[in-house]
Amino acid sequence: MEEKQTASQGCGKTLKTAEILAVGTELLLGHTVNTDAAVVAQELNALGISVLYSSVVGDNPQRLKQALLQAFGRSDLVVTTGGLGPTPDDLTKEIAAECTGRKLVSHPESVQRIREYFRGRECGENQFRQALLPEGAQVFPNHRGTAPGCAWENGQGGLVLILPGPPGELVPMLQQEVIPFLKGKTGGVIASRMVHVFGMGEGAVAQRLGELTQGENPTVATYAKENEMFVRITARGETLSQAQDLVLPAEKQVCEILGDVVYTVNQDGSSESCLEETVVSLLQKAEKTLSAAESCTGGLLAKRLTDIPGASQILEMSFVTYANRAKEELLGVPRELLDTFGAVSPEVARAMAEGVRKVSGSFLGVGITGIAGPDGGTPEKPVGLVYIGLCDGERTWVLKLNPPGQAASRAKCRGRASSAALDMIRRRLTGLPQPGAICFSAQA
Amino acid sequence: MEEKQTASQGCGKTLKTAEILAVGTELLLGHTVNTDAAVVAQELNALGISVLYSSVVGDNPQRLKQALLQAFGRSDLVVTTGGLGPTPDDLTKEIAAECTGRKLVSHPESVQRIREYFRGRECGENQFRQALLPEGAQVFPNHRGTAPGCAWENGQGGLVLILPGPPGELVPMLQQEVIPFLKGKTGGVIASRMVHVFGMGEGAVAQRLGELTQGENPTVATYAKENEMFVRITARGETLSQAQDLVLPAEKQVCEILGDVVYTVNQDGSSESCLEETVVSLLQKAEKTLSAAESCTGGLLAKRLTDIPGASQILEMSFVTYANRAKEELLGVPRELLDTFGAVSPEVARAMAEGVRKVSGSFLGVGITGIAGPDGGTPEKPVGLVYIGLCDGERTWVLKLNPPGQAASRAKCRGRASSAALDMIRRRLTGLPQPGAICFSAQA
Repeated sequence: MEEKQTASQGCGKTLKTAEILAVGTELLLGHTVNTDAAVVAQELNALGISVLYSSVVGDNPQRLKQALLQAFGRSDLVVTTGGLGPTPDDLTKEIAAECTGRKLVSHPESVQRIREYFRGRECGENQFRQALLPEGAQVFPNHRGTAPGCAWENGQGGLVLILPGPPGELVPMLQQEVIPFLKGKTGGVIASRMVHVFGMGEGAVAQRLGELTQGENPTVATYAKENEMFVRITARGETLSQAQDLVLPAEKQVCEILGDVVYTVNQDGSSESCLEETVVSLLQKAEKTLSAAESCTGGLLAKRLTDIPGASQILEMSFVTYANRAKEELLGVPRELLDTFGAVSPEVARAMAEGVRKVSGSFLGVGITGIAGPDGGTPEKPVGLVYIGLCDGERTWVLKLNPPGQAASRAKCRGRASSAALDMIRRRLTGLPQPGAICFSAQA
Repeated sequence: MEEKQTASQGCGKTLKTAEILAVGTELLLGHTVNTDAAVVAQELNALGISVLYSSVVGDNPQRLKQALLQAFGRSDLVVTTGGLGPTPDDLTKEIAAECTGRKLVSHPESVQRIREYFRGRECGENQFRQALLPEGAQVFPNHRGTAPGCAWENGQGGLVLILPGPPGELVPMLQQEVIPFLKGKTGGVIASRMVHVFGMGEGAVAQRLGELTQGENPTVATYAKENEMFVRITARGETLSQAQDLVLPAEKQVCEILGDVVYTVNQDGSSESCLEETVVSLLQKAEKTLSAAESCTGGLLAKRLTDIPGASQILEMSFVTYANRAKEELLGVPRELLDTFGAVSPEVARAMAEGVRKVSGSFLGVGITGIAGPDGGTPEKPVGLVYIGLCDGERTWVLKLNPPGQAASRAKCRGRASSAALDMIRRRLTGLPQPGAICFSAQA
């Protein structure tokens, strides 16, 4: 998808284009990955503000000044991240104020907040540098740290917005303080929905959606992620309900075309994977429990489920059964099955799922066995081969995952297997078919 | 740390400054985090080439051209990532060739590689666009995909280097093909070592290292990571052994000053956490096994251990025991202990470690119980409180982790607890004390 081309100069109140400037030598050294830029870009694009440039500069006054002036000249909104702390190499605010001809003045509310933050602990005088803000700026309090953010006119008809660098401070400030402030300045309201898909590739999804992806309002765009993909539908209107009225029919159409590979639809347009969130929520609603017996995924499935708050309601216990001895002793997998078919076999995946269900007393049992690599593969059982069993007490489904076309990393093999298991659980809980899986009657 | 200021123009063969240009609208939309820039920056800095700018441009020919020309004017080496694929919006190579006055010509070896890649599968004609390369360029084959990388002189005395965007293709190409090529062009050889530290904060480490961090050759710099930190020592010499002779005494000094919080020293200067790698390797060498009983970490410790290839030798089985019933039934934790002290208590952590060791027959047993949040905290047992037990059959250590000062996320609480458990295992295996832990005689 090509970003929109729009006029950038002298637009006064309406913000159409933006530029992100991340400040910090640690980013240029590659010791920190610039996740802030992705977060800010997502939020701005969701508001209908097109991000046309994104750059990094080190903690160097001269280069920072040049970068700011270039950005003011070509973008309506310039957002900086980082460089607001109390140490001498934190320079963003000073340089940005200088470039826009503003004095720094003490902001009493921010002074007070810093005092409260350090209550009962030692607080250096340099901390209060963070409460010196450009005169007349709109201030955004920092609920997770000491450096407030702020925004002011850049003197060239646009706006400069400075935000703290630590993601734990930036993200809540952006979402709670900055987005509501910017909403009034985009000349319209944006509504967007994110349709999450598992089990169909980006190419196939794009082909099925066909002309839908050619529209301008709403726009329908596909994005690939590791092991899954999503479709984002965005519309602009004069009011939120006008924008939503454009989004909802398109969302309905997308879901109808794609069918049961759609596992959830989000309002906020976040692109996080939420297969585990969907599964935990389905289990909670059904008041059902789950246990897993993991071999090649080694706890990854349990880890993903327990990443979600409240997972304790749906997972009482789970097992990592790497060794054959563990499969026998803990799950009751018969030794002759292991000897005859090998640990990586549909028979063992089935016995693991059935065994863990029985041992745990859970509603669902999941067994995962495979070869995660990089070693241990054979021509018959190559790296990437995985069998997943799912048992609900009446039936047991066994799904085979073939090695992906490309030599996949250990992390990718494990991620893919845990995602496929989550999707099987989702399908069982929503009464959907299990494509590609073989179904057996569960053994007592 | 401030990046080095060096002259950038007309340096011909010696590369001192670099600039990274990531190409792709998905980066400006925030749907992809720019990890490539961090990887490239790390590698270039390790070679002694200072990265002074890093930017993102969308798939827009005009803005890409402007960005390239600006970069050629101010940096010795311009590295692009992305935009080399077979689709019409992949434009990096075409625009870079145009900016440097080179024709694109078919590269027979790359044609052959693309044919082999698609052997037995359908291959569109557009795939062969990827084998059209700037005349006279140095070509870097892509062992994981179809688009080769290449480098050529930019006509302004510097070098342009174009690399594919997918990290799975970029990283091996960079390490295996590009770095050896660049090594001859930096006017010196760089050696660097990375000292990994767990259990001491960046501030405390920097203070202890004192004047060591002020040197110029070697340089000694500290970097914080989530839950741990590291010290990087880098020196430049005319030959590798000259550079190493400068690095090794500084490394020895750093390790002596910091003591047993140093858990490993790496050659390559990668900044990956490798606490789990260290632990798996120690267990392998000692031919010992481990089992865990995880409550609040929910499988994260097992997941981290099994991220490492060969973990099957040291982990036969492991348990997620979320519910009290699971702690009782699977580990034999006495119900009166759970009733009297509660599941999050030193007594239960100890019983979990001792129980899982006995049940699994492993050399070491680990029990982790705590409150990961965001809910479930009380004034007596707040979110972030964790107890970790470690039993070797003779002794059981119990470590209490207090909630961190700031409201920590669920992911952070879980990450910190699993790292602290790994460090306890490392300390037991290397005969080090367990600071802060209480030691009991193990119960039979």
